Amino acid sequence: MSFIDQLNWRYATKRMAADKVVPQEKIDAIVEAIRLSASSYGLQPYNVLVIQDKEVLAKIQPVAYNQPQITEATAVIVFAVWDKATQERVDAFFNLISSERGVPAEALAGFKGMVEGTIANLDEATAFNWMARQAYIALGTGLAAAAIEGVDATPMEGFNPAGLDEVLGLAEKGLKSVLIMPLGYRDEANDPLAAAKKVRKSTADFVVSL
Amino acid sequence: MSFIDQLNWRYATKRMAADKVVPQEKIDAIVEAIRLSASSYGLQPYNVLVIQDKEVLAKIQPVAYNQPQITEATAVIVFAVWDKATQERVDAFFNLISSERGVPAEALAGFKGMVEGTIANLDEATAFNWMARQAYIALGTGLAAAAIEGVDATPMEGFNPAGLDEVLGLAEKGLKSVLIMPLGYRDEANDPLAAAKKVRKSTADFVVSL
Repeated sequence: MSFIDQLNWRYATKRMAADKVVPQEKIDAIVEAIRLSASSYGLQPYNVLVIQDKEVLAKIQPVAYNQPQITEATAVIVFAVWDKATQERVDAFFNLISSERGVPAEALAGFKGMVEGTIANLDEATAFNWMARQAYIALGTGLAAAAIEGVDATPMEGFNPAGLDEVLGLAEKGLKSVLIMPLGYRDEANDPLAAAKKVRKSTADFVVSL
Repeated sequence: MSFIDQLNWRYATKRMAADKVVPQEKIDAIVEAIRLSASSYGLQPYNVLVIQDKEVLAKIQPVAYNQPQITEATAVIVFAVWDKATQERVDAFFNLISSERGVPAEALAGFKGMVEGTIANLDEATAFNWMARQAYIALGTGLAAAAIEGVDATPMEGFNPAGLDEVLGLAEKGLKSVLIMPLGYRDEANDPLAAAKKVRKSTADFVVSL
């Protein structure tokens, strides 16, 4: 199946078959794709949580408007963005580049100044929004990886972030949840959207000519 | 090559070989993947421009801080978000669902009310930000598609959006540019990053345990 076929196959699954379990190696491959995702400067200003514990999933469900996929999924991936782009976090990023590439910190000073300048120019809300956008790129990568693995996924913004942060203790980790992605297998008998035609703007309407 | 290998192969290309031309069918496949990308409610509150005209690319370059990829690329994809989520645009989306799925408008009234409610609850800046985030999912899909096609791509936020909107006449189309993605082939001789190790947080640092 081509990537285009895989993208046509996927859809935002509304019901998953709880008795169909996604193999761990497929979940790991999807998480690895998310880890490799692009982000501005390569900063990766977010983390993920991969939740498979049924008790924790049951606690998440009410803060996600009781959507059934939360507990029907094999795993739920939570994308959690840094609450602040602190100097400590930026320093850790440059220490990582320095050690991974074997280059001295001085050689990265120009690049580091650029990243620090970008962050210093943004007020806190705008900086958070910028970091959150990077997590959306990662969601796109994760949805692609799931489709390639033949695993169903549901991108979700529809939950109470403060409530989810509390369930997961994210404030203590300096993180704020922005996205959820349950992974499982579609329940074709109970999901009316499983058979629905995918609706997208036509290429003529989507691609703007000059 | 597995998708993970393809993601490891890709990087934010800083120099492209202008004499190496990406075949049109590969550009079309990448644009098609972007068109099929997920978005909240499936609303697709953005369009893309696929710019291959060398004169237009030369005009874009100065508003993109003279980054060389703009004119070295075979094509530059611009992601442009709706300036406003107008009722007319929401109506067009529901008319499309209705005609594509052959369901009467009345059957979509509940879903439509939900989308309208979401938009009505957001101030204009927040609504724009929400729509822009959807374009970032599409960027993630596009970067995945490019990697799968073996085409280099550079995700770019670093440009003057107002300047680019003016070059492309986007205000008259009710659109605002948020992202650029040049497509081409890496110039290994001139791009020092072509040989650099990819730096990502380790899985242990990336995946947060409860």
